[in-house]
Amino acid sequence: MKKIGLILNVLLLSMVYAYAQELTSPSGTFRLTFSLTEKGEPTYRLDYKNKSVIKPSALGLELTGNMQKVEFAGEGESTKERPVHSLYDNFTLIDQKRTTFDETWHPVWGETKDIRNYYNELLLTLQQSGSERLMRIRFRLFDDGLGFRYEFPEQKNMTYMVIQEEKTQFALTGDHTAYWIPGDYDTQEYDYTKSRLSEIRGLMQQAITPNASQTPFSPTGVQTALMLKTDDGIYINIHEAALINYACMHLNLDDKNFVFESWLTPDANGTKGSLQTPAQSPWRTIIVSDDARAILASKMTLNLNEPSKIEDTSWIKPTKYVGVWWEMITGKSEWSYTYDLPSVHLGETDYTRVKPHGKHGATTANVKRYIDFAADNGFDGVLVEGWNIGWEDWFGNAKDHVFDFVTPYPDFDLKEIRDYARSKGVNMIMHHETSGATRNYERYMDTAYRFMKANGYDAVKSGYVGNIIPIGEHHYSQWTNNHYQYALEKAAEYKIMVNAHEAVRPTGLSRTWPNLIANESARGTEYQAFGGNKANHVTILPFTRLIGGPMDFTPGIFEMDIQKINPNNRSHVNATLANQLALYVTMYSPLQMAADFPEHYKRFIDAFQFIRDVALDWDESVYLEAEPGEYVTVARKAKGSGQWFIGNVSGENGYTSHIDFSFLEPGKQYTATIYADAPDAHYKTNPQAYTIRKVRVTNKSTLKQKVAPGGGYAISIVER
Amino acid sequence: MKKIGLILNVLLLSMVYAYAQELTSPSGTFRLTFSLTEKGEPTYRLDYKNKSVIKPSALGLELTGNMQKVEFAGEGESTKERPVHSLYDNFTLIDQKRTTFDETWHPVWGETKDIRNYYNELLLTLQQSGSERLMRIRFRLFDDGLGFRYEFPEQKNMTYMVIQEEKTQFALTGDHTAYWIPGDYDTQEYDYTKSRLSEIRGLMQQAITPNASQTPFSPTGVQTALMLKTDDGIYINIHEAALINYACMHLNLDDKNFVFESWLTPDANGTKGSLQTPAQSPWRTIIVSDDARAILASKMTLNLNEPSKIEDTSWIKPTKYVGVWWEMITGKSEWSYTYDLPSVHLGETDYTRVKPHGKHGATTANVKRYIDFAADNGFDGVLVEGWNIGWEDWFGNAKDHVFDFVTPYPDFDLKEIRDYARSKGVNMIMHHETSGATRNYERYMDTAYRFMKANGYDAVKSGYVGNIIPIGEHHYSQWTNNHYQYALEKAAEYKIMVNAHEAVRPTGLSRTWPNLIANESARGTEYQAFGGNKANHVTILPFTRLIGGPMDFTPGIFEMDIQKINPNNRSHVNATLANQLALYVTMYSPLQMAADFPEHYKRFIDAFQFIRDVALDWDESVYLEAEPGEYVTVARKAKGSGQWFIGNVSGENGYTSHIDFSFLEPGKQYTATIYADAPDAHYKTNPQAYTIRKVRVTNKSTLKQKVAPGGGYAISIVER
Repeated sequence: MKKIGLILNVLLLSMVYAYAQELTSPSGTFRLTFSLTEKGEPTYRLDYKNKSVIKPSALGLELTGNMQKVEFAGEGESTKERPVHSLYDNFTLIDQKRTTFDETWHPVWGETKDIRNYYNELLLTLQQSGSERLMRIRFRLFDDGLGFRYEFPEQKNMTYMVIQEEKTQFALTGDHTAYWIPGDYDTQEYDYTKSRLSEIRGLMQQAITPNASQTPFSPTGVQTALMLKTDDGIYINIHEAALINYACMHLNLDDKNFVFESWLTPDANGTKGSLQTPAQSPWRTIIVSDDARAILASKMTLNLNEPSKIEDTSWIKPTKYVGVWWEMITGKSEWSYTYDLPSVHLGETDYTRVKPHGKHGATTANVKRYIDFAADNGFDGVLVEGWNIGWEDWFGNAKDHVFDFVTPYPDFDLKEIRDYARSKGVNMIMHHETSGATRNYERYMDTAYRFMKANGYDAVKSGYVGNIIPIGEHHYSQWTNNHYQYALEKAAEYKIMVNAHEAVRPTGLSRTWPNLIANESARGTEYQAFGGNKANHVTILPFTRLIGGPMDFTPGIFEMDIQKINPNNRSHVNATLANQLALYVTMYSPLQMAADFPEHYKRFIDAFQFIRDVALDWDESVYLEAEPGEYVTVARKAKGSGQWFIGNVSGENGYTSHIDFSFLEPGKQYTATIYADAPDAHYKTNPQAYTIRKVRVTNKSTLKQKVAPGGGYAISIVER
Repeated sequence: MKKIGLILNVLLLSMVYAYAQELTSPSGTFRLTFSLTEKGEPTYRLDYKNKSVIKPSALGLELTGNMQKVEFAGEGESTKERPVHSLYDNFTLIDQKRTTFDETWHPVWGETKDIRNYYNELLLTLQQSGSERLMRIRFRLFDDGLGFRYEFPEQKNMTYMVIQEEKTQFALTGDHTAYWIPGDYDTQEYDYTKSRLSEIRGLMQQAITPNASQTPFSPTGVQTALMLKTDDGIYINIHEAALINYACMHLNLDDKNFVFESWLTPDANGTKGSLQTPAQSPWRTIIVSDDARAILASKMTLNLNEPSKIEDTSWIKPTKYVGVWWEMITGKSEWSYTYDLPSVHLGETDYTRVKPHGKHGATTANVKRYIDFAADNGFDGVLVEGWNIGWEDWFGNAKDHVFDFVTPYPDFDLKEIRDYARSKGVNMIMHHETSGATRNYERYMDTAYRFMKANGYDAVKSGYVGNIIPIGEHHYSQWTNNHYQYALEKAAEYKIMVNAHEAVRPTGLSRTWPNLIANESARGTEYQAFGGNKANHVTILPFTRLIGGPMDFTPGIFEMDIQKINPNNRSHVNATLANQLALYVTMYSPLQMAADFPEHYKRFIDAFQFIRDVALDWDESVYLEAEPGEYVTVARKAKGSGQWFIGNVSGENGYTSHIDFSFLEPGKQYTATIYADAPDAHYKTNPQAYTIRKVRVTNKSTLKQKVAPGGGYAISIVER
C-alpha cells in the first residue's frame, strides 16, 4: 500500500511539475513560478521572502489581423486578411533550460565601477496547438527581482508578426500606493502623483497638465518605471529593459482587481509593432525590496542589456557644462533672432535682411562669456541653443523642413566661437532641435554630424518638441524608437555623444551604446520656469525615471524667483539652494549642467564651489536613506580622485537626516564641507538661506542634519 | 434721355464687370469667365468655340481644424484646436492683373524640339471678409485649353494651412463618355473602362481588379488624367500639372449632376496636405478640342511647369535597353536566389550558406548574354532586376529594412559585369526596388547613388511595390510625393536619371527636372503576363497616362503565348507583333525597353529590325489619326538623323488607317519600310502574323492600311 501511495505521490508531483516550473534567485529570496492553465495560457507569479508580490498573472500577446498579404506570382490573387492571432493560449511546454550566470563587468561610466550580473535563468519553449507556433519566455531571477522577455524563434509559421497588443499582466496583491504619471504616447513631462491605485482614476484628469505634444490614452493608464509600495512596506518597481525595435510599454490598471496590463504605444495605423522572427520583446522588469535603498541601488536594468557594442570608448567622456539655455527658458531672451518673419523658409529666408529683435541669446559675445565662465571654473563644455536659423517658426505647425542643423544666425560666428573655445580648452556642445520632424533630421543627419566634427562639437543635445512627423506617429512608437536608435548608432560611427530630450525614456541601452550619455524624457528643471515642479519631484525621479538611465536634469538654479529674471514670468523654483547642490549627487548623470547664469553663481560663490568640485563618474555609490516622495541620501566615491560626495534631497515636509560615514576608509581623517539649508530655509519663502561648515570626520562619524521643506544638503569630503 | 440710358448701361456693365472677369485665349477659341456668387464663392466656367464645356463650377479649399497650436512661452497654455476654415466663400475681388506670354523653349528630350508657350493670363487676388485671408487664382488660357491654380501669399493670417479637402469643381454639360480608372490612393494599374458618366457607379466594383497595394475611396471616384468625349464630339481632358509638395488629385463624380470635384489623397492622419505660405496648388488643367489629335499634341502640361533647374544636362540621354526582367515577370525565373529562407535579415543572413534554387535570373552569365545582345543590336543599356540580396522576402509584410541597394547576390559579379559592359560600350541600368519602404530608401540613398556612380550606373529604375511605409501613408499623399521629389532632386545632384515605377503619375515635372526620364505609374506590359491587358489599352493610355509624361511601357513582346515561356502561366499578350513594334512610336518615351528575350527576337529578326532602327528623341511629332479606345497614328521625325517613323495601334475591332505623308519634305524621295499585320492577324488567335514591305513614298503619297484587332503597323522612312 505504501508503495502505491509513493508512486501516486510521485505521479502527482510530476503532474504538477509538468505544469508548474519554479525558479529561485541565487540567494533564494525570490521565487518565480510559471504555469500553464487548463487552456494552455502561460502565467507567472513572483514571491519575495515567501510572500506573494505578483499574484498569478497572464502572459502573451495578441497579433493583429490587419496585415495583408498578396500572392504576387502571375495570378493576381486578391488581398487577404489574416485572422487575429492569439499568442496567449493553447500552449504546451515543450522544452525548458536552466542556467546560472555570474559575471562582473565594468561600465564606461556609471554609479559604480563594477557591476555584478548574477542570476538564475529559466528558458521555456512553448508550442501553440493548431498554429504550431513557437514562443519562448526567458526568466532571469536576480537577488533584487525578476526580468523576463518573450522570444519568437525563426519559424516557417511565423516569419512576420504584427502586434495588436501585448498582454503581460502584473497582478498586484492589494491597493498599493503608487507614484505615477499619466500614460501618454507623447510626453513624460508630468509631475508625479502619489496615491493608492484605486484613486488613480479620480486623479487622472488633474494630473494631465498641458504639453506641446501629448496623447493620454486611458483613465487608469500610467507610465513606467512605476514605483509602488505596499502597506507592508514592500517596494515594487515595474519597468522595461533593452527597448529596441519595439513599442514603448505603458501599464493600464484594472482598478477593481489591481491588475496592470501592458499597453504598448501604437503606430500611425493603430498597430503596436511589427516584428520579423527571430525577434524578442524588451525585458519586463520587477525590482522588489523591503528596503527602498535597494531599489535605487539595483543594476538589473543595465544587466539585462547587451554588452557594449562600441570597442574604443575613449571619446566618451563625462561632461560638466554651462550654456545659453536658461535665459530662453525663463523668457529673458529668445531662441529666435527676429520678430519680423511670419514664417521661415529654410534656404530662402534671408536673415541678413530682417531686423533682429536684439533678444537673441545665442550671440557670439554671449557665448564667449559662457566659454570664459566654463574655463574659469573647470567646466568641460558649453551648450548653445538657438544658434541656427529657423527658430522664428519652429514647432506646432507640423513643419517638416524646420531646421537644417548647419546654418548659424548672422550674430553667431561659428568659426570664432570654435577657435575661442579651443583656445580655452572648452568643448562646445551642439544642439539639434528636430521639432519632431524625424524624416528631416534623418535627411540631414550625416551632414549635421560631419559638421559637428568639423567644428569641434563632440556631443549633441537633441530635441523632439512637438508632435512627431510623419503625422500620426507618436514619440514612443516602434517607428519613432527606431529613429532614436538610428540617430544613436550613427552618432557612434561619428564618435558623437548623444543627450536626447523628449525621446523615449531610457531602458538601460547605455550599456550597449555608452555614447547615449543622458536623456531628458521626464519633467526637468525647465518646468521650474514653466510654473514650478512639486518640491518632492526630485525625491521620486530616482525611483522612476532614473531606473532606466541618467537624466540631463540641468540643476544648479540659485535664483528661485524667476520674476527677477523676466518680469513677465512669475514662476518660482520649488527648491532650496542646498537642494540644488545636492542634485549633482542624488540625480546621477555623467552629463551635468550648471544651468543658472554666471552672475547668480557669482553672488553665491561659496556655494558654487560645490558644483565646481563635484565629480561626475563614480567608483562606488552607497544609498544611505531613501523613501519615494520624501528623501534620498546617497554617498558616492569619485573615480580617479577617490573623493567622496554626499547628497540629500527632501520633499514637501523637509526631513531630519541621520547618516553615518562607515563607507570611509578606516583609520583615515577627512574634512567634510557641508552645504546645508539654514534653519529657517524653505523652498517657497526662503530658498537661498544656506550654511557652509567644515567638520572633521572619520569612518566612525555620524551626522544628524535637519533639511528644509524642498531642501537638501551636499557634502564634499577630502582626506586630510 | 439717351445720355442717361448710356450712363445706366455703363453702370450696369461695370457692375457686371465688377463681378465677372473674362479671359479669352490668344486665338479667341476659348473663353474663361470667373465670377463670385452673392455669398462670395469663386466660380469659373469655360466655353469653347462659344459653347459651354465647363458650366459654372465652384473653386476653393476647406482647411482643417485638426491642427493644434500651443503657446510655449512660460505659461503652459493648453492645446487649442483651430476651427475649420472655409477658403471657398466670403471673398471679394481686390485685384486683377492681365498678361500675355509667348515664348518658345526647347526641351532636353521630347516629342518635338520646340515648344511654344503662348497664353493669356488672368491673376485674381481675393480677400476673405472676417478672416482677412488672401487667396489668388491664376488662370492661363491657351489655344488648347485652360490651366489654373491657387496661390496663397505669405500673410500673417495664414502662415500654415492644413487642407481638409480641395473643392475644385468641373461641372460637365452632360452624361459624357469617359475613359476612366478607379480613383485609388495607391495604384493606377487598372485597365480602363469606357462608359458614360452615369454608368461609373455600376461598373466600379468590377473595375477594381486586385493589386499589391490599393485603396479605392469612392464608388464614383476616378483618377486623372481623365479623358471625356461629349456626344457632340468635343474631347475634354482633365489633369494636373506641376504636382510638387501637394497631395495627388483624384476626381469624385456627383453622378446626378455630372459634376466632378477634386478629391485629394490623404496622409496617415486623414488630412490632405500641409502648406506653409507662400504656397501654391498644382495647376488644374482642362484640355479641349473637337479633334482628338489635338489632345495628344497638347503641350499644356509641360508649359505649366517651371523651366529646367538642371544647368548642365549633357548627362541626360535617351536610352534604349534590354534586360533581365521579363523572365521573372512571366515566372520563368526568379528575382530571388533561394527557397531556403523563411525570411531575410539584411546584414545577418549569410547567402553563401544557403542552397540556390537555380532559377535566379540575375546571374553574371545571363547578364553578360544581355550585354552581348545589347551591344550587337545597338542598344544603350541593360537593366537587371534581382541583382541584390533580399528578394526572398521583399514585400507584403510592411518590412522596413528590406533592401540595402548595394549588396549583390553571390552569383552576380558586380565588378565583372561592370567591366564587361564598359568593354562593350553598354550602360548598366540600376534597379532600386524599395518595397514602399521610403524611410529605408532615404537612409540608404546617398550610399546607393554613390555606389551607382562608382560602378558605372547612370540611370535607375526605382519601384514602390506594396504598401507605403511609414504605415498608414499612401503612394500619392503629399508626404510620399515629397519623397519621390527628394529622390529625384538628389539623383540630379549625382547626375543620375530616374525611372520611377509605382510612383505618383507624372504631371510634367520633367520640364523642371529632365532627369525624370520616365515613370510607370499605370498598367504596363507586365500585366500582359499577369492575365493580359485589354487590347485597346494602348489606344487609351496616350489620352490619359501620357498626358503628364512618358511611360516606361516596356513593349516589344514577340511571344504572346506566355505558357510557352512558363507552363504555369496561361496569360496571353493581347496584341499583335506589329502592334508591339508600333508602340515605340505611339507610346512616346525617351526610355524604351525591348522587353522580350533575345531568342524571341532572333526568331523574327526582320521585324526586330524596326526596334533596332526606331529613334527615341524627336524634332517633330504629327498626330495623324486618333480616337480614344480605337486607334492612334503618329509620325515622328528623329532628332539628328531627321528620319521619320510612323506608328499605329488599334483597339478591339481593328481599324483601317488612312494617312498621307504630307509631313515629308517636298521634292524628296523616300523608302518606307512598312511592318504591318498580316491580313489574317488577330491579337488573340494569330498575333505573330505580320508582313514587311518596302514602298517608295514622297510627300504626296497616301497609305491605306488595314489593321487587325489589337494590331498596328510601324513604318521607318529613309531618304533615297
